[in-house]
Amino acid sequence: MFVTKGEDTRASVLSAALSLASEEGLLGITIGGLADKVGMSKSGLFAHFSSKENLQVEILKAAIDRFVAQVVTPALKAKRGEPRLLALFERWLAWKDVLPGGCIFAVASVELDDKPCAARDVLVESQKDWIDTLAGAARIAIEEGHFRKNLDVEQLAHEVYCIGYGGLQVARLLRDPKANARARAALDRLVRDARRPH
Amino acid sequence: MFVTKGEDTRASVLSAALSLASEEGLLGITIGGLADKVGMSKSGLFAHFSSKENLQVEILKAAIDRFVAQVVTPALKAKRGEPRLLALFERWLAWKDVLPGGCIFAVASVELDDKPCAARDVLVESQKDWIDTLAGAARIAIEEGHFRKNLDVEQLAHEVYCIGYGGLQVARLLRDPKANARARAALDRLVRDARRPH
Repeated sequence: MFVTKGEDTRASVLSAALSLASEEGLLGITIGGLADKVGMSKSGLFAHFSSKENLQVEILKAAIDRFVAQVVTPALKAKRGEPRLLALFERWLAWKDVLPGGCIFAVASVELDDKPCAARDVLVESQKDWIDTLAGAARIAIEEGHFRKNLDVEQLAHEVYCIGYGGLQVARLLRDPKANARARAALDRLVRDARRPH
Repeated sequence: MFVTKGEDTRASVLSAALSLASEEGLLGITIGGLADKVGMSKSGLFAHFSSKENLQVEILKAAIDRFVAQVVTPALKAKRGEPRLLALFERWLAWKDVLPGGCIFAVASVELDDKPCAARDVLVESQKDWIDTLAGAARIAIEEGHFRKNLDVEQLAHEVYCIGYGGLQVARLLRDPKANARARAALDRLVRDARRPH
């Protein structure tokens, strides 16, 4: 792919902004503060992002691209069905260590949950997409005969989301070294239950 | 209980600060901003709280008192064992609607997870205490013969925490009207599994 210098700069600024937002919060990022961080002029950054609100949206879109590249795409190489669901989960466990301040979606969720704005819309879509991806993997596991036919895949996806999301919190706030092991044990129980005919 | 005017003022300022922190974040609260909100002088608030850092700690302590009063104490009236665990969970589901900005512990968790400070220590203790309370209820459920003897109560408490914590996120960010029903279904599956002999 041909990348112009402008696109290249834009991508590296967004990468720095994403790391910063994971630590300071999405709402804490200003074009001025980011300009200092990346050693560019404020007017130069305005030319790229036009407003703080647009910058927030672009940071989240960069985060989604990163999440897809680090979590979703590699997991799609796993065998269809249960193995792929497990691969998605395992990749997700590793995601919290990709950015210096942890999961940007968790950070932004707390900041934006009651603030209507364009960034909130992007965030909500991203989380619904992720839950749908988990539900889709479970649906394929039914087709492949790994999971029972009457499994409620929406409920299962919700529970996987909670195990991952809550586990991330236990790992980061409580620094519990068993957090990943507990998350895997919880998923294992869920998957065993999904296999069992009811 | 005899309450002096000073204690009364302090309690009502903390109550306002707690509501504000749930919406704006704990780190967003300043003594100046809070003074405007409650119509007191900045110097008057300094006399009560001495520093921003101490104010953050006092807000969290007020939140813990509120949590104990709204969630833990009423649930202790439920029958020992499984009914009490279910009552703790049900009260916790309602907790997210007590403050205008949702669960202050969830908000503060994301803000403080990688910021060492006195408020972080108080927050970590509070979350460990809550997980221990859930584990304790499960332990009593074993004694009462409701749950199987070889149940891993620490793992169960971790999973209940994730169901509640993740469900709170789904309710507040995704505005999923099924969030509470999904959380209850997840807990129900967990409890049925705790009963079954392995």
